[in-house]
Amino acid sequence: MYFCDLKRMEDKIKTFAKFGDAGHGGVTRYSLSPESILARDEFVKRMTAIGATIETDDLANMYATIPGSDPNAKRIVMASHCDSVKNGGNYDGILGVMGAMEVLETVVAESIPHKHPLTAMIWTNEEGSEFPPCMMSSGTVSYDYMPERFRDNFEFNKMMASRSILDPEMTFGEKLSTFKYKGDKANRINPDQYKAMFELHIEQGPILEDAGKDVGVVTCVLGQMLYRIKFYGQAAHAGTFPMKKRKDAFYAASEALCYLHEEIDKLGHEDLVYTTGEVVIHPCVNTVIPDFFDFSIDVRHENPEVLNQVREILATLEKREWQGCKCEVVLGWNRDTVYFDEKLIDHVREAVAESDIPYMEIKSGAGHDAQYISYMVPTTMIFVVSKDGLSHTEVEYTTPEQCTNSVSVMLNAVLKADKADD
Amino acid sequence: MYFCDLKRMEDKIKTFAKFGDAGHGGVTRYSLSPESILARDEFVKRMTAIGATIETDDLANMYATIPGSDPNAKRIVMASHCDSVKNGGNYDGILGVMGAMEVLETVVAESIPHKHPLTAMIWTNEEGSEFPPCMMSSGTVSYDYMPERFRDNFEFNKMMASRSILDPEMTFGEKLSTFKYKGDKANRINPDQYKAMFELHIEQGPILEDAGKDVGVVTCVLGQMLYRIKFYGQAAHAGTFPMKKRKDAFYAASEALCYLHEEIDKLGHEDLVYTTGEVVIHPCVNTVIPDFFDFSIDVRHENPEVLNQVREILATLEKREWQGCKCEVVLGWNRDTVYFDEKLIDHVREAVAESDIPYMEIKSGAGHDAQYISYMVPTTMIFVVSKDGLSHTEVEYTTPEQCTNSVSVMLNAVLKADKADD
Repeated sequence: MYFCDLKRMEDKIKTFAKFGDAGHGGVTRYSLSPESILARDEFVKRMTAIGATIETDDLANMYATIPGSDPNAKRIVMASHCDSVKNGGNYDGILGVMGAMEVLETVVAESIPHKHPLTAMIWTNEEGSEFPPCMMSSGTVSYDYMPERFRDNFEFNKMMASRSILDPEMTFGEKLSTFKYKGDKANRINPDQYKAMFELHIEQGPILEDAGKDVGVVTCVLGQMLYRIKFYGQAAHAGTFPMKKRKDAFYAASEALCYLHEEIDKLGHEDLVYTTGEVVIHPCVNTVIPDFFDFSIDVRHENPEVLNQVREILATLEKREWQGCKCEVVLGWNRDTVYFDEKLIDHVREAVAESDIPYMEIKSGAGHDAQYISYMVPTTMIFVVSKDGLSHTEVEYTTPEQCTNSVSVMLNAVLKADKADD
Repeated sequence: MYFCDLKRMEDKIKTFAKFGDAGHGGVTRYSLSPESILARDEFVKRMTAIGATIETDDLANMYATIPGSDPNAKRIVMASHCDSVKNGGNYDGILGVMGAMEVLETVVAESIPHKHPLTAMIWTNEEGSEFPPCMMSSGTVSYDYMPERFRDNFEFNKMMASRSILDPEMTFGEKLSTFKYKGDKANRINPDQYKAMFELHIEQGPILEDAGKDVGVVTCVLGQMLYRIKFYGQAAHAGTFPMKKRKDAFYAASEALCYLHEEIDKLGHEDLVYTTGEVVIHPCVNTVIPDFFDFSIDVRHENPEVLNQVREILATLEKREWQGCKCEVVLGWNRDTVYFDEKLIDHVREAVAESDIPYMEIKSGAGHDAQYISYMVPTTMIFVVSKDGLSHTEVEYTTPEQCTNSVSVMLNAVLKADKADD
């Protein structure tokens, strides 16, 4: 078994944490932002230093490739993203990119023989923080291969028209057209040139930590659906309008939110998660009764039947008025559970089993680019433990040792895939 | 009894509705904005046309004055504001300014004899929409006359340091310093030069309409307090963090909001109003559990004892955790009920009684510049009916006839004050 280098990983973690440093231990590094360019420049610098060839595609996805012994062999790619949520941490996404670089650096430094070209890759706009949806470019690249019913979410021109939440005048396409690393569509990852994709990522949950494991062998990504729950009330003056006549959209939403927790929790599914994280209120003035309140609800579970049960509860919201306000439930998008490639899962399981790193099988509650690429190229993921299960926050943390161990697992799994029959 | 001119009022209503027209029947016209300059330019144009003298003070409050028969007599001023809330209507504030102009125009057109100089006035930043607090300049101008405990809210340098909610880099003082209508502190309204102030305003509630009255003789402005209720949770990933371990600040706030309605309504005070209109949520991303949620609560009642009962309920929020989140209750500001000048109230009552306009006595639930000026100069208010009791919304409406009638009442009340012993 081969091992990656702790010092080199520590250096990468420290360096990339500077790009978009928000000042309290984390980063805000939106895709296509100046901060994201700094991270990509560093990627180019380090990969060029080991003799890798740099390519970029029309969505600014980046590929750094070192050749294998067989010039005709398909590539094996290790990919993740370098963009973050607002006030995110130093591991979500970027760890998978640093890990891919570390694998290539180790292979070159130790002249590890391999047949297939090995590629380290950066996915553009996985978080969708400024330009929704999340996993935009993996969804777009795998468009022709994904089930019909998901395609509408990732139609190319629709993605290009996605508006910035920071500047509604700006579309993703406009920003991309002037972006330093926009390249050629011909360079997109595809089934003819790529044999397999691995994505290393922090778990973003407490399951590994609670079980005392460092690495998770990921078998699937849980099904997920996103809805917006909208309430329409009537604005009026705070000081003069009698309580009995009010149609307060914020009160309506609060009452409905408590109702949702009550009803969904009654279903009794331990492993069901749902989140109401995004809010829009109008006019948001302390002397005015709100006439509009809208919140998102993100629901995840492996079993589509369980998602249907929640869907039925959401539907009941529209059947009554909430504090005199009408309610509207709008589907954002949804996807079924995605199962990863059995062969690749075995390579990861064998690689970690040969080490003394504590591991377990795990399902991914988070969405990842890997789930869309798995429609197109054999794909799997490796998770590494997250301290306190926290992510999408500045306090997310994984020790340098745990990071390096997980990268060593990826290196050895990639080498097994390299040896496996094509 | 004298009457104002319907056609002239209609023309003013139509004209001022253009300045900040938000495109669906209402205006967004923040104080010191380009739109507010258009409204002030129109004020200057119309008042200059009737020979009025224009003055502005250091807070950009504007005064248009026509002389009376006694050059030594104190001024009688009619004042309101021309700024609006976000997506406000065409009557809140601006009606009192248009009414003051209409009174002067009528007095000049019909050469109505009067002893005292008559002044039409615009107050700066009554709404505090961009730069809090509301009623900023009337509070600042009357600073030396208001009860000690309110002063901290209106200390001059503190007002100048108020930050824009649109651009936190910008303070009110900075924007004011370059504002077209900033003038001289010596021009501020004061007890030595002003005998009385009248403020005409829409009711902003349904009381007059429900009683079939057009005009309200206002006797007081209700006591009011503003608090912020803050919840501190823990951000984590939507897809991976188990429900049982979550500290969701939005869920916490929703539960607490429903609790507040339950507890406050138990007090059983029909005429108590409270509003939760302004919300801050962080990070406001649909894949992240919110770690912070903050909402405003504005509470109003004539009786300080009733306000204390609500204060006690708010205090109980801090005594427990809400969905694992800590809660903090922060006082924004508060004031006691303000009673208007008996003599001026009588003038208004007599003026409307001499007409055939249906009227009643009424208490103001809304705050107005008049309440602060009443600490300094004898002051009162006149309300006119609001359709459906709505205001601070684009659909607020009062018919041109009702507007003109209420202005005629102000004209005749002013003439009674003009004749009354000084």
